Amino acid sequence: MASPSSTQTQSRSPEIRKDPVNNRWVIFSPARAKRPTDFKAKSPQNPNSSSSCPFCIGNEHECAPEIFRVPPDPKSDWKIRVIQNLYPALSRDIGCKKDGDPDAEMRCTGDLGRVVTGFGFHDVVIESPVHSVQLQDLEPREVGEVLLACKKRIEQIKEYDLIKYVQVFKNHGASAGASMSHSHSQLLALPVIPPTISARINSTKEYFDQTGKCCLCEVQPKDLQIDVTTHFISIVPFAATFPFEIWIIPRNHSSHFHELDNEKAVDLGGLLKLTLRKISVQLNNPPFNFMIQTAPLQAIDTQLAYIHWFLQIVPQLAGVGGFEIGTGCYINPVFSEDAAKVMQEVNVP
Amino acid sequence: MASPSSTQTQSRSPEIRKDPVNNRWVIFSPARAKRPTDFKAKSPQNPNSSSSCPFCIGNEHECAPEIFRVPPDPKSDWKIRVIQNLYPALSRDIGCKKDGDPDAEMRCTGDLGRVVTGFGFHDVVIESPVHSVQLQDLEPREVGEVLLACKKRIEQIKEYDLIKYVQVFKNHGASAGASMSHSHSQLLALPVIPPTISARINSTKEYFDQTGKCCLCEVQPKDLQIDVTTHFISIVPFAATFPFEIWIIPRNHSSHFHELDNEKAVDLGGLLKLTLRKISVQLNNPPFNFMIQTAPLQAIDTQLAYIHWFLQIVPQLAGVGGFEIGTGCYINPVFSEDAAKVMQEVNVP
Ligand SMILES: Nc1ncnc2c1ncn2[C@@H]1O[C@H](COP(=O)(O)OP(=O)(O)O[C@H]2O[C@H](CO)[C@@H](O)[C@H](O)[C@H]2O)[C@@H](O)[C@H]1O
Ligand SMILES: Nc1ncnc2c1ncn2[C@@H]1O[C@H](COP(=O)(O)OP(=O)(O)O[C@H]2O[C@H](CO)[C@@H](O)[C@H](O)[C@H]2O)[C@@H](O)[C@H]1O
Repeated sequence: MASPSSTQTQSRSPEIRKDPVNNRWVIFSPARAKRPTDFKAKSPQNPNSSSSCPFCIGNEHECAPEIFRVPPDPKSDWKIRVIQNLYPALSRDIGCKKDGDPDAEMRCTGDLGRVVTGFGFHDVVIESPVHSVQLQDLEPREVGEVLLACKKRIEQIKEYDLIKYVQVFKNHGASAGASMSHSHSQLLALPVIPPTISARINSTKEYFDQTGKCCLCEVQPKDLQIDVTTHFISIVPFAATFPFEIWIIPRNHSSHFHELDNEKAVDLGGLLKLTLRKISVQLNNPPFNFMIQTAPLQAIDTQLAYIHWFLQIVPQLAGVGGFEIGTGCYINPVFSEDAAKVMQEVNVP
Repeated sequence: MASPSSTQTQSRSPEIRKDPVNNRWVIFSPARAKRPTDFKAKSPQNPNSSSSCPFCIGNEHECAPEIFRVPPDPKSDWKIRVIQNLYPALSRDIGCKKDGDPDAEMRCTGDLGRVVTGFGFHDVVIESPVHSVQLQDLEPREVGEVLLACKKRIEQIKEYDLIKYVQVFKNHGASAGASMSHSHSQLLALPVIPPTISARINSTKEYFDQTGKCCLCEVQPKDLQIDVTTHFISIVPFAATFPFEIWIIPRNHSSHFHELDNEKAVDLGGLLKLTLRKISVQLNNPPFNFMIQTAPLQAIDTQLAYIHWFLQIVPQLAGVGGFEIGTGCYINPVFSEDAAKVMQEVNVP
């Protein structure tokens, strides 16, 4: 296990680059190559025990610094910890303070590329002190607390003018990319707006310009609906990119995930738990990712009208190949309405 | 092994869908779920023997119909076969004939989605009659023949006005997505222009509008160059999305891969072979994909000025996680100039 202090300093600083062919930002981050994995030789069923897991209660000293914990009292036992990522993709230490800073250093290398200094925040949310507890094992209220911890961290990061977008995401299981088996999520706060987010905003704007409506406020077709709660609905999107992809959408228009209040957090916690359990039962406990798709931090009022946040869940059932890498077009073997049916039919206790 | 005739007919026809949130096409193709794999439990080192492989010489009857072979004489032994994919993502049988046809059926489902009939071609190029021979084992001239077979097939498909783009790609190794270990590539001919291709064209247009030049005609920085031949250059792109991603680019402006002539095919065959061998030596024989990034079939003259085809090679060294799925932004742990250096340093015999 690398020691928390030594590893972070040695590498070249991260950079964010773009070339004129793809015109999309790529984060170069040598530090990432060093991170350990506790999934031994692709056997996600036998993760490390808690004795050697830095995310377990009692091993806090093996982690990068804590940002905050829930409950906040540093002497009480914690339920959730938000900590720095020990192998961060972006660096919180380069050239930036809160507010009023000049724009991130942007330079051109010849005419053939652009570079932004790799400033940003990369944090880990440890969702439980206990190694064997998964997110879906928590009570709805506790899942809500994890979501509220993400909200709180976003509200802290939002003070940095240079940060444009915060991606909250979770990797569960080795083939969903997880290198640590202890239940956790991550936040990556970026000084650029990533391509999928720009594309989503452009597209929902187009719908709004044509119809005067936010497309995620529209009533979803019955055959794509899975569950409805007071504040949220879960659906399989009409053009799901991945088999059994599911979106949990706020029923009332809301642009930023961090608008979530305590009552809605419990409601969302319950629906997220239910959805993850349904996926686990119907698809044989697959690895999965979820991503919170939200608005850029500094989105302006006119944009907020057509940006509607949602939580995107993707079970990892099949890999991709050269076709998807080359085209950005995906092949989904399961029609959305068929996937929704499978999710409607299951009853979890 | 499913029998060649029965499988293709049962499933619902493929559809290509788009929703207003992502605004990108997804191919729904239930037939794909049925395809077999000859990689047993993730052990790419122990592929099936030739006795049970439909791509091996002598087992032609286990394959979907042949389109052509090289050499063309049906009674001689073949070196290359281009065949239909038995589990095609798109269907060649729905609603379309050559030329002058009405546009692919496009319908709207409510206001929340668009659908195009899943017409298209999905073919397999069997690169050698022998199970154990990989592409990089062939002579430069023979690799060139594989490329010319792809060119020939594109020229046939180009007669169909409904087809907008042909993606040529190769999956090598199970974690690069390959379900068959016998050396092969694929062609997928689409009735839509996929998102990555549109984005690439928009981006190179922007560069052209600003500078009056095609950005892939520009001299590449020395520290990113790997090899140079008479007609081609191999580089690590400045903002490589994946570690050790390599592009092979024609040195003279050329928009369509299928402009490749016999002489250039041998030259490219040699450089592709060299590059794959370098990757194999330096990165310990990793799984990889390659993709031919070319111009849409019906690109107009003004576009051709800034569309420059290239062959993109991506070794599969690490998976992706929720961050990449959510944002379309990638984290590359190896700076491009460092990757290029590793490739410059190796000498393969
Ligand atoms: N002692 C310690 N203290 C603090 N933090 C520690 C730590 N030990 C490990 N960490 C961090 O904990 C995180 C665990 O994250 P995950 O298991 O979700 O996947 P990871 O980020 O490794 O990569 C996956 O997700 C990313 C982003 O999607 C993909 O780039 C990648 O390919 C995929 O494998 C790692 O980022 C690691 O750096
Ligand atoms: N007897 C037979 N006759 C004719 N054709 C036969 C056949 N038996 C099998 N085939 C076809 O041969 C092809 C072999 O292709 P690959 O091994 O490159 O990967 P595959 O297309 O399965 O999926 C990978 O590539 C695609 C596209 O990138 C990804 O969607 C997917 O996730 C990834 O695993 C398959 O498409 C299969 O349908």
